[in-house]
Amino acid sequence: MKDFIFNVTTKILFGKDQMKNLASEIKKYGSRVLLSYGGGSIKRSGLYDEIVKILEENNIFYKELSGIEPNPRVESAREGVKIVRENNLDFILAVGGGSVIDLSKLVAGAVYLKCDPWDIVIKKAIIEKALPIGTILTLSATGSEMDAGGVITNPETKQKLGFGSAYTLPKFSILNPELTYTVNAKHTAAGIADIMSHTMENYFTLGDGAYMQNRLAEGILKTCIHYGPIAMEYPDNYEARANIMWASSWAINGLLSTGKETPWSVHAMEHELSAFYDITHGIGLAILTPRFLNHILNDDTVDMIRDFGINVFGIKASDDKFNDAKKAIARLHMFFEDDMNIPMTLGEVGIDDEKLEEMAEAAARHAGGSIKGVVELKKDDILEIYKASL
Amino acid sequence: MKDFIFNVTTKILFGKDQMKNLASEIKKYGSRVLLSYGGGSIKRSGLYDEIVKILEENNIFYKELSGIEPNPRVESAREGVKIVRENNLDFILAVGGGSVIDLSKLVAGAVYLKCDPWDIVIKKAIIEKALPIGTILTLSATGSEMDAGGVITNPETKQKLGFGSAYTLPKFSILNPELTYTVNAKHTAAGIADIMSHTMENYFTLGDGAYMQNRLAEGILKTCIHYGPIAMEYPDNYEARANIMWASSWAINGLLSTGKETPWSVHAMEHELSAFYDITHGIGLAILTPRFLNHILNDDTVDMIRDFGINVFGIKASDDKFNDAKKAIARLHMFFEDDMNIPMTLGEVGIDDEKLEEMAEAAARHAGGSIKGVVELKKDDILEIYKASL
Repeated sequence: MKDFIFNVTTKILFGKDQMKNLASEIKKYGSRVLLSYGGGSIKRSGLYDEIVKILEENNIFYKELSGIEPNPRVESAREGVKIVRENNLDFILAVGGGSVIDLSKLVAGAVYLKCDPWDIVIKKAIIEKALPIGTILTLSATGSEMDAGGVITNPETKQKLGFGSAYTLPKFSILNPELTYTVNAKHTAAGIADIMSHTMENYFTLGDGAYMQNRLAEGILKTCIHYGPIAMEYPDNYEARANIMWASSWAINGLLSTGKETPWSVHAMEHELSAFYDITHGIGLAILTPRFLNHILNDDTVDMIRDFGINVFGIKASDDKFNDAKKAIARLHMFFEDDMNIPMTLGEVGIDDEKLEEMAEAAARHAGGSIKGVVELKKDDILEIYKASL
Repeated sequence: MKDFIFNVTTKILFGKDQMKNLASEIKKYGSRVLLSYGGGSIKRSGLYDEIVKILEENNIFYKELSGIEPNPRVESAREGVKIVRENNLDFILAVGGGSVIDLSKLVAGAVYLKCDPWDIVIKKAIIEKALPIGTILTLSATGSEMDAGGVITNPETKQKLGFGSAYTLPKFSILNPELTYTVNAKHTAAGIADIMSHTMENYFTLGDGAYMQNRLAEGILKTCIHYGPIAMEYPDNYEARANIMWASSWAINGLLSTGKETPWSVHAMEHELSAFYDITHGIGLAILTPRFLNHILNDDTVDMIRDFGINVFGIKASDDKFNDAKKAIARLHMFFEDDMNIPMTLGEVGIDDEKLEEMAEAAARHAGGSIKGVVELKKDDILEIYKASL
């Protein structure tokens, strides 16, 4: 196990009855709020009205940054920074899923820098201070509610890149599973695929002796596999939504990667798909992951993938390790396809072979020449994985 | 899943090479340190000299509180408070296992109160402020390095009781698995039993839908079962010591009990054993747990105990649920007895039937008349469990 530092200070307020704490949590940090959100769903659900009422009753000044996109774009951050500066705001309340929270983190850091927010994403500038952030989560997926990072898209440069700073870790996050009852089947499935992908990116490593972390990862994967189909069939099943929501935070808040080196592989490949085609991130991850595992299956990785099948899907170990590993991959594919109803080919999400080469080249370039995960992926490897996903 | 708040802010610095951060971590909070520790082991190991050198090189003033006992006694807290006040200290560096850290937490809170420290433990006084605490852990067991509570013994009243306050959560903890290489077999085994007991106290609940938490608990139990025998046979196996150390923190820092009601049962019974006889806490827990499970095995709990056997020990499910559950209990007993070499009867640790009645009465009384865990335990239940452990 490698040396590490773990320091996740976000206060989680979980459950049906936590909005009563919203005003007092905000007031610990500020009194002039940027209320950031996405499309109109929080207006339709009544959540917007509830929040505004709380802010007004508690004399908390606020301005709105609305219309933050799925795969959030850097323009929104520029707008957010402008609103914060013009109104001298001192706190950001991000209401939504990962896109809203990610974008809010970028605003929080960019406010204190003179550069364009995109400079932070491409590492030309470093966050050294940030506005405090609180979140109200409405979608279980990215884990942004309890981690320090975000992913931002720049449509002009066709880039979708991650950034992170300890300063942008949310101070508090309100997690009410009921707020996810209205998430439709497609986004429920995509969210679960995202949670599972975060977990698997941390899980599929070799030789680091991080045994406990892997057992915890298996626990989170089992949770997704158990409750995913229940949430699909019964959108207002509290137990399912609660377990999935809590899993989303722990898949990526750093615990599973403690003691490990985990340069993520599938995310690096998927980011090009959604940068070029604006597809739903979780769907892209689901499509790529079984092809990725199939591509990296070799003498070094066979035990790792086989253990995954045994410990997560309960497949029966046989003498043929490779066959067991292939079964594990097939089970994962079938879970996404049959249980979560995810379109499992690129063709089904509107991606043909036209730009595969360009995307593979970009994925390798953005990773510094090649993706250095559990197995190194050069451009040709990435292209092969894309092709196998067509 | 019940509503909950999770907010564990302790910064964990884990690994072989973290002492380099000690001075800078302390300086975030103070400059006049109470250095608290137990017997001479940190002097024999060289750790004491290393710490003193760091403090002196960084011009950090310190005074010592030494000789803190296993099952730490309230007298030590009184002494600690006196030293802090006389020297105007502003930080506590606790070096040791759970006893040292627990006692340091009581000192940290009592310094700001006019009452006797024991009044905090018996809830006659409430901690409203505390000195900041940092820890250097030398024993994997109680998890005190990443939680807010402690357990203190009062030999005069024969009480051993828990207390806790959000203010006494350590600011940072340095976890170097190498520091546990010198822990002898008995205390290695007792520590693992303690970690497993914390996990099981959180795990054995009914009907709360905290599925993810239970899968994570199983991951921690599997980690203990996998590495316990390795640490016994190879005391300087880093991977084993590291996994056990990291497991100790997560067994009890609150994650496993999120969304649950977990009034602990076995600890409540064990505390009387070590209050009356000063036995090693973890040994007492190991002795009592299989008898406790056997006692509570009924139509309501059989699936829970059976799942434990299947998911943790890999026992094969049969049509006879009760037999499967009994197998699970037997496997746990055998693990403690055969793999961890723990004396599994009260007789072997010097406890006969003389005070069982008195202890059972005390255990029930301290729990408010009866222990209200997964199955309510009245005085006669407790007595029966004690007797079955003879």
